[in-house]
Parts: sequence; C-alpha cells; structure tokens
Amino acid sequence: MGKNLTKRTEDYSKWYNELVVKADLAENSGVRGMMVIKPYGFAIWEKMQAELDRMFKETGHENAYFPLLIPKSYFSKEASHVDGFAKECAVVTHYRLKNDENGKIVVDEKAKLEEELIVRPTSETIIWDTYKRWIQSYRDLPLLINQWANVVRWEMRTRLFLRTSEFLWQEGHTAHATKSEAITEAEQMQRVYADFAENFMAMPVIKGTKTDSERFAGALETYTIEALMQDGKALQAGTSHFLGQNFAKAFDVKFATKEGKKEYVWATSWGVSTRLMGALIMTHSDDFGLVLPPKLAPIQVVIVPIYKGEEQLNTISEKVQPIIESLRKKGITVKFDNRDTHKPGWKFAEYELKGVPLRIAIGPRDIENGTIELARRDTLTKEIVKQKELVSVIDKLLVEIQESLLHKAMEFRKKHITKADTFDEFKEILENKGGFVLAHWDGSDETENKIKELTKATIRCIPLKEDSEEGSCIFSGKPSKRRVLFAKAY
Amino acid sequence: MGKNLTKRTEDYSKWYNELVVKADLAENSGVRGMMVIKPYGFAIWEKMQAELDRMFKETGHENAYFPLLIPKSYFSKEASHVDGFAKECAVVTHYRLKNDENGKIVVDEKAKLEEELIVRPTSETIIWDTYKRWIQSYRDLPLLINQWANVVRWEMRTRLFLRTSEFLWQEGHTAHATKSEAITEAEQMQRVYADFAENFMAMPVIKGTKTDSERFAGALETYTIEALMQDGKALQAGTSHFLGQNFAKAFDVKFATKEGKKEYVWATSWGVSTRLMGALIMTHSDDFGLVLPPKLAPIQVVIVPIYKGEEQLNTISEKVQPIIESLRKKGITVKFDNRDTHKPGWKFAEYELKGVPLRIAIGPRDIENGTIELARRDTLTKEIVKQKELVSVIDKLLVEIQESLLHKAMEFRKKHITKADTFDEFKEILENKGGFVLAHWDGSDETENKIKELTKATIRCIPLKEDSEEGSCIFSGKPSKRRVLFAKAY
Repeated sequence: MGKNLTKRTEDYSKWYNELVVKADLAENSGVRGMMVIKPYGFAIWEKMQAELDRMFKETGHENAYFPLLIPKSYFSKEASHVDGFAKECAVVTHYRLKNDENGKIVVDEKAKLEEELIVRPTSETIIWDTYKRWIQSYRDLPLLINQWANVVRWEMRTRLFLRTSEFLWQEGHTAHATKSEAITEAEQMQRVYADFAENFMAMPVIKGTKTDSERFAGALETYTIEALMQDGKALQAGTSHFLGQNFAKAFDVKFATKEGKKEYVWATSWGVSTRLMGALIMTHSDDFGLVLPPKLAPIQVVIVPIYKGEEQLNTISEKVQPIIESLRKKGITVKFDNRDTHKPGWKFAEYELKGVPLRIAIGPRDIENGTIELARRDTLTKEIVKQKELVSVIDKLLVEIQESLLHKAMEFRKKHITKADTFDEFKEILENKGGFVLAHWDGSDETENKIKELTKATIRCIPLKEDSEEGSCIFSGKPSKRRVLFAKAY
Repeated sequence: MGKNLTKRTEDYSKWYNELVVKADLAENSGVRGMMVIKPYGFAIWEKMQAELDRMFKETGHENAYFPLLIPKSYFSKEASHVDGFAKECAVVTHYRLKNDENGKIVVDEKAKLEEELIVRPTSETIIWDTYKRWIQSYRDLPLLINQWANVVRWEMRTRLFLRTSEFLWQEGHTAHATKSEAITEAEQMQRVYADFAENFMAMPVIKGTKTDSERFAGALETYTIEALMQDGKALQAGTSHFLGQNFAKAFDVKFATKEGKKEYVWATSWGVSTRLMGALIMTHSDDFGLVLPPKLAPIQVVIVPIYKGEEQLNTISEKVQPIIESLRKKGITVKFDNRDTHKPGWKFAEYELKGVPLRIAIGPRDIENGTIELARRDTLTKEIVKQKELVSVIDKLLVEIQESLLHKAMEFRKKHITKADTFDEFKEILENKGGFVLAHWDGSDETENKIKELTKATIRCIPLKEDSEEGSCIFSGKPSKRRVLFAKAY
C-alpha cells in the first residue's frame, strides 16, 4: 500500500514532490519553472476559487479583467514597487516570428516593439492606470474590484505550487475616499482569508502585519496570514496590503469630494494564489498520500465494489444505486469506481493517495448482511455500518472529519509555538524543534537581517493578538515592547 | 433618453464601439490592442462561462491548466500549425530588467533566454507535449480536457471583444483511440456550442464545416457555428476541430491498444472566446443600448422608486422588500436602485443602456392602487401590473423575453439568407441587402480567393443541413453539388 511514497521523516521535501505528482495534482512542464495543473489538482483549486469568489462577492466586490502585458514605463511610476518586481519579469520585445532562409523559425527583428511589454507579475500599475479613468468623484468610490488571473515572476529555484514562474491567483484592488476606509478594507480581507483558511482548508493561521523589510513593494502596511507546515516551516498563505496614496499619486488618481475639493484616493490590494494548494497538501497529508478536508475534496465518498464476476457486480451496483442517489441529494459528491481494469487493493491505495475523505467497500457478504465497510482517510480507521444508516453516518462524518483536521492542525501548531528569551535558545529551537518562535526584537532592519543571515529564520509577522510585553531583543539586547513571530519559511 | 448613442442606421460600427464603452462592458487599455473588461461586462462573461463549464462537465470533460509561455521550438513541430500562428505572437526574449546608470529601467541584456518563449496564441503544442507523458495505453483514453485561459495574438486593427490582441477563451483538447470517436467528439462540441448560442444567447447559428482555406491551422476538419449580426455581416461564434493524428505525430504520442499494438492517438480541439460578447451585443441591441437575454443578464429586474422625500422612499422600500424576497426565492436577480444621487429618468435610460430585461417603477400612486409599472427592455413596452400578481408575471415574462429574442433573431436571419445564381446577383445582394448568400461554388481555393478579392465575402461554411443540389459555380460556371454559405464577416 501507500504507492511507495518516500516517508515524511526520511525526506520531507522529496515526499512533497512525489505526492504532488503521484496524486495527480500537478507536474513540471517542458517550460522551465512552469507547471501543468492536472485535472484532479485543478478540481481542488476550482473548489477553492468558488468559495473565495463567493466570499469576495458577499463583501461587495466585483470581478473584472485587465491586460496581461504591461508597458515597461508603468513600472517606473511607483519607485519602491519597481524595485520589488521589475527585476524578475518575462519581457516581451517582439511581436512576430518568421521563417529564415533555412525554413527555421526565428524572431523577426523588424517586429521589435518600441517599448517592451512585461508579462504582469502583479497588476497594480495597469489597474491604477485604468482607475485614473474610472474615478472622478466621491460617487465613484469605493471601487471594489477583484481579478482572477495568471501572473509570471521569474524564479530560479522552483517547486510545484510553492514557487513557480507562472502561477494562478486572484488580486483584489480597491480604491477608497478615506485612509481609514482603506485600512478597514485591508483588514477585512485578511479576516476573509483567515476565515477561508480555517473553515475550508482546515488550516489554522496566525494573523499579523509584516515588518518594513518583508512588506509588499509599494505598501504602507502588509497584513498576512501565516500557516505552519508539518515540517515546522512557516508558509505565508495570503496577504492584504494597505497601499496608502502611493499608487494614486504615481498614476495621478484624484477624486472630487462632496465639498468639491480634489484629493488623492486611498488604495488596497490583496491576493492568494495556487500556493494555497501547497499549503493544503503540507498541512494534512501523510505517508499514504493526500488528506483532503471534505469541503475541498472533489470526491467526498468513493465506493469500491468487491466482486467476482459480472453477476456479483450487478447485484452490488443495484444495491449501491439508491445510496448514491441519496448522497447526491444531500449535495455529497460520490464516485462509484466499478472499473474492471484494477483490483480493489489497488483502488484503496489510489484513493488514499488522492485523499478521498471516505471510502466505502461493499462485497457479497455485505449484501447478505445489509452492511458496508466505511474507511476514514484522515484516521485510516474502518467501521462496519448498516446500509440503512449509511447516509446519515456519512453526513455526520464529513462534518466531523472537517473539524477533526482543523483540530489536529491546531494542536500541532500549539506544540510548535515556542517562546525564546535568548539567542542561544532561539537557535536551539529552530534547529531541533522547528515551528514558530515568539521572541523579542528591537524593531530594526539591521537586527532582522542579521538574525536571518545567521539562522535563516525571518519575522513572519507581528501578531495581531500578541499582548504587549516589555522585554529585550534576543539579538541586540535593546528594549522591545512585544514579541514577534519568527520561523524558517517556504 | 438613449444616452446619445449613435444610431445603428447612421454608423453601425460607431454605434457598437460607443455601446460597449457606455454600457460599461469594456474599454481600450493603455496597452495597444488589449482591452479592460469592466465589471458589468465581466459579469455577463461569467454567466456565459458558468453555463459552458456546466455543459462541458456534463459531456465528461475536466478542467486543467497549462503554461502561458511556450518554447519557440514547439511551434515548429506541426508544420501547418506554425504557418497559421507563429507569425502574430508576443515573443519573450528576456527574463530581467535593471536600472541603467541614469536610473532608467532597461532590459538586462545578460538575462537573454537561450530559447525564446511565445505567449500562447493557442495551446495545442504545449498540451500535446504534456499528453505524451499522460497517454500510454488505451486505458488512458479518451482524455477529455478543457482549459479556461487568456491568449495573445498580435492584431494590427483591433475592436473591443471582436478582435483584441489578448482575449479570454476556453480551449478543449481531447485525445481518442479511434478516428471515429474523435470526429464524434468534434461534432458533439459543435452541437454544444450551437445549443449554448441558441438557448442562452438567444442567437441562432448555422452549423457547417470550413473550406480548406478557412480551416484551423493543423486541422483536417473545422466545424463552425456562424451567426448573423444586425448589419448583415456574419460572425464565426465557435469552432471545433478534428485534428486527425497531426499533433500525435508531431509530438510522438502513441498508445498501446488492447491488442498490444502501438498506435498514434486521434485528437480534437475546440474553443469559444470573449468574442461571444461582441456577438451577443450585435445580435439583440438597439439604439437605446444593450438588450440582454434574461438567462445571461447579471441583473434581470431593476426596481426604480419614484418619490419625493425620505418618507415616501421609506413607504416604497417597505412595500418593495417582500417583492424582492419572493423574486430572489425564485432565483431571479433583482436590484433596487434607491440611490438619491440620480433622478428616475436618468436611471431609466441607464438601465435601458445596460439591457436589464425588466424595469419596475413604483411611486406613491402605485402604493395607493396596489400596482406597479413594468417595462420590457426588448419591446420597450410598459404595462400596469397588480403587485400581488407581479412575481408570477415576471417569472413568465423572463421566459417570454428569452424566447422572443431568439424568435426575432431567427426571423431576421430568415429574411437575410438569399440564394444567388449568378455572380451579378451575388454582388448585388452583398452590396444592397447583406446577410448570408447561398450559392454554388466549384470547390477550388482559387475561386474562393477570387470571390473574396472581388467582394470581400468569404465562405462561412458548407452547411450541414443544406440539401445536395446540382448546379454550377456562380463564378467559374463549373459544376457544383451543393450550395455553400457566403457572407462578409467580422
């Protein structure tokens, strides 16, 4: 069983790579650093998208679409933004290919663009260039827009879902009349992301703000949600930025107030990406494969018939049909795998690998006894259930599994948040135990960078909930007003 | 009223451009040839996507995602494909920008790609490069995959939705064990597109196949659906291609048959794009603005209160609330526009412009009488309806409007399909009446090209339903076995 996955304790990174490919989630393409998202992986992403999209619309946002290619000059308009992004971009320089004298396909040098176009690494610039036309008066505000899109950021070392040169994401871009409204929006979206992470991905997250050096290029404040993976490394799962008036000034977007004055508008942007797939995988999965929370599982229940010969299969199929129908009526997704090309044992391992929350096995003896065998993917436990009680048992179990996964991840995280009061303690925790470390920091870039250099740990966030507590920086000994959250991170 | 749109009879093309912008559907961006799809336009596209996606899934397809950037060499592998596409592509040559000595942002010449990457104009090549890894045995077939994506084709003359350098679309790519299965798939998808066009867009289409010269680059057969716009020009609304074994051979994709032989697989691809937005607009809209079929309208019913002072508005709001709730329970999308920033007359014109199928006006006298005024966008007629009958009246009217729009478009098309038996007749029809012309053609590329040169009319398709009928080519006089469908086209 287990389809020969490397064990997590042996080589966590290898386990992850194998799992992503073997569970049919994604694979590397022939294009350097870019992945193919396979149908099963994409089905999970579609479920994430549907929930997020609903949440965005419920909070008043509308979807729109902006160009993929952005003129180079747009990036220069916001100084800190260009430093953060322009360095790692795909640059379009020509718009035509031709056959050379040998019939080989070459770039047509006559078709050189006057100004290079950048494949969007993020869309603030093209969107604010558009908002300049859309915003004239306070009546046009707030402008609450989201875009589902692909983006490209050139990466040297890539890993499926976690760091790829192209990824899929959503980017919200909003414009407001006042500073406080914009901050409220950025904070709201951080809460929406945390809600999604916890209630759909069953992944607990810590909400906080980024330090100066970890902040988004062009933002005044970056709100983040930070998750903890099973190997003790942190993963930034979503960010929401308060952009102040930086982009409004860069693109000259002013509005007439009710009093007739002209003022620059206030902005936010926020995004989550296919990186969440990586987070989902690493939060719950085990040495047998993927473990999916029921709310995001493309298949929630799989039924595997145990039979010899067509007659037995027919009897089972007849028995199973009304069960399938009752489950579907309750909105539960069921697959009846009656393929004769594979044996039950192979199928069991396959659905364990793919993280299907519940597996039903039903054979001739079950038909006689009016029972079925029900297996839980998260606990790998089995029970015998009466067929007539099956639907209500499944209905309850799906809720229980969803809760149990969150609970388990919460417990794991609780065990892996450690306070450190000296730098030695800090290093010792990072090396042996991993996880989040709460420690005092003097607030300077210099100390932050030194700690990063020496330990590879970064400040994941200044937690919203951490109480203020006087102390001294673990590195410099200088005074500190509160602990911040350190970790090695993806 | 009418927000000062140019009239269709005055300048159809200008009318279209104004309508797209004024009804908040799309606008040109700062990037040459690329559009911004505005929230209202995107909401219509989302409705189209949702229906199409459901239809694709019902016919057994799954979604996946493939890389945006494709190595240049992939295009060379299928000879006719590269001729059709490689000439009009955005080419990525570098992966980094840098600041020059003056602080200006320039391309970093050190970061030149060894092999150029092409922004996908369509994905056959990258997908077949992937299918090579996915297909080994007959058990892996059929492979039925769809992708929702953006594509870039460099265009010199662009028009919003109809011809843009970047557009959104879906592209299905399937692989089959036999030729006949692949042909069946390609034909099925043509029917799915025709079904969507007629039953959701209320746009009748003619199904047929393309001639050699109009066929997709790399296909053996292209199935098309052709619609007729109000100005008498045709619009290709969707195509489905039988690709034979061309891509399987180019990318060496073979499968082991049940008998253990190795054979090349058979392929199809099929797509519709945001071009459908243009088709939708031009099929139904009038001089007052957009006309939307209820099934694709983001707002199906708008309620405009007619009031003086807050007290009257409150009375109306109270009365309207249960109506809104009953409509929503029936799945009808309602907007209550109680903004005090605009007068009722302005709102009426606004929702006419935006094509909302039904408009309710309700004032103090209606409150007294227990009535409302109900206006139909498609016919611009009004009626007084009793409030207690309103929900059932609206329910029926939405169905009626949907049907009536299709009927009207059918009637228009019927009047604009003309048979021509001589070339003079042919030219006369094209010049004065427009629309589709059914005429005999000798089957040669040469004649087709000559006719195109002289009249700008192309063969839209060889209709599936046209009876065989002996005759002689209107241009060459040579024998012909059936009439084909000519038109000037978008």
